[in-house]
Amino acid sequence: MREQYNEDLKKLNDMLVEMGNLVENSLEKSKKAFKEQDKTLAEDIVRGDQSINNLEHDIEALCFKLMLRQQPVATDLRVIATALKVVTDLERIGDQAADISEMSLSFNGKYPYKTVEHIPTMMKVCREMVHEAIRAYVTKDLERGKRADAMDDQVDVLFSEVKAEIVEILKEGKENIDDCLNYLIIAKYLERIGDHATNIYEWLEFLMTGELENTQ
Amino acid sequence: MREQYNEDLKKLNDMLVEMGNLVENSLEKSKKAFKEQDKTLAEDIVRGDQSINNLEHDIEALCFKLMLRQQPVATDLRVIATALKVVTDLERIGDQAADISEMSLSFNGKYPYKTVEHIPTMMKVCREMVHEAIRAYVTKDLERGKRADAMDDQVDVLFSEVKAEIVEILKEGKENIDDCLNYLIIAKYLERIGDHATNIYEWLEFLMTGELENTQ
Repeated sequence: MREQYNEDLKKLNDMLVEMGNLVENSLEKSKKAFKEQDKTLAEDIVRGDQSINNLEHDIEALCFKLMLRQQPVATDLRVIATALKVVTDLERIGDQAADISEMSLSFNGKYPYKTVEHIPTMMKVCREMVHEAIRAYVTKDLERGKRADAMDDQVDVLFSEVKAEIVEILKEGKENIDDCLNYLIIAKYLERIGDHATNIYEWLEFLMTGELENTQ
Repeated sequence: MREQYNEDLKKLNDMLVEMGNLVENSLEKSKKAFKEQDKTLAEDIVRGDQSINNLEHDIEALCFKLMLRQQPVATDLRVIATALKVVTDLERIGDQAADISEMSLSFNGKYPYKTVEHIPTMMKVCREMVHEAIRAYVTKDLERGKRADAMDDQVDVLFSEVKAEIVEILKEGKENIDDCLNYLIIAKYLERIGDHATNIYEWLEFLMTGELENTQ
């Protein structure tokens, strides 16, 4: 019984690591699909999001199983309850990477040169932030998590810059309006990705200290 | 011990009901603040979101306490674990109502007559959907939850209509571009509110049947 339980706890950790890798990978690829207008890659990411959703589902099921069938001790229960919360943020990042890819398809291969300055920068910062937050979580490194969390301000500033840039482009009236609105939605997804990375750090903090923060 | 535990379980339910009421109330008020360009009300909603966040925090803390300090039986544990998940969706709806209100402030009291057709309709449908999903959850009424869930398609269609309308308005070039982008962001928040209401239904389904769905 105890052996099975320890095995399941280890499995839970492995699944979280795997989900983190899938999400990071999807985000990295969505950046490439957007920048290079790679339709095949974008479609691949949209399809691949199902694996992330399935993994979230499996992790939740395992958490419930661990909580229900065994009587975990306090520290293990915190690990399980935190896993149950953090998968929501991981899954949403995966969703948003897929949404960005789907939206990238609507540009019909046209390179969005006008927004080249801020959206790719925002993607780069988000990608880095998510990577650091996930690595911090799986290695239980609070300091690293704190550094990831601090990057969220940068993401918010970049969102405002993208928005201001889109206003300018629309004023010029040369760019396709639909594309501009889609750039804005992509930037909004990226801003939310930053919030989810911050949440991952806050769940790590709870995991390590037992102190709850208000998530975003 | 058992008495305290039952009291805490009842308290958990009361807190969820209260959080549901606060969220619904905030959403209803954000609709009014947007339509009537009521600055005082909008500021009130933004400030009030802190109470919703605090309540989420308190519910999570109570869930952890219930899981850690006592050894809940299987059915109670499902109630607790589901509460832990559903508060995330409730809190996000509250956040988005506050975000909509904050954005409403940027219109400087100018009545957004051009978008009168679809955004207020979208707000109305979302408000109804959230109300039904929350009522279904707290009264454990699966059929009612299913009806709420079915409204999400309507919300998605309305989002596309709002977006198409904004493209037209921008083409005409008479409206303030910044305002138009903010209308789009508001519509995006409303679309997400629909997704969260769907999640609430899916958590109700898990609560009642033990079957997990993929949340959005």
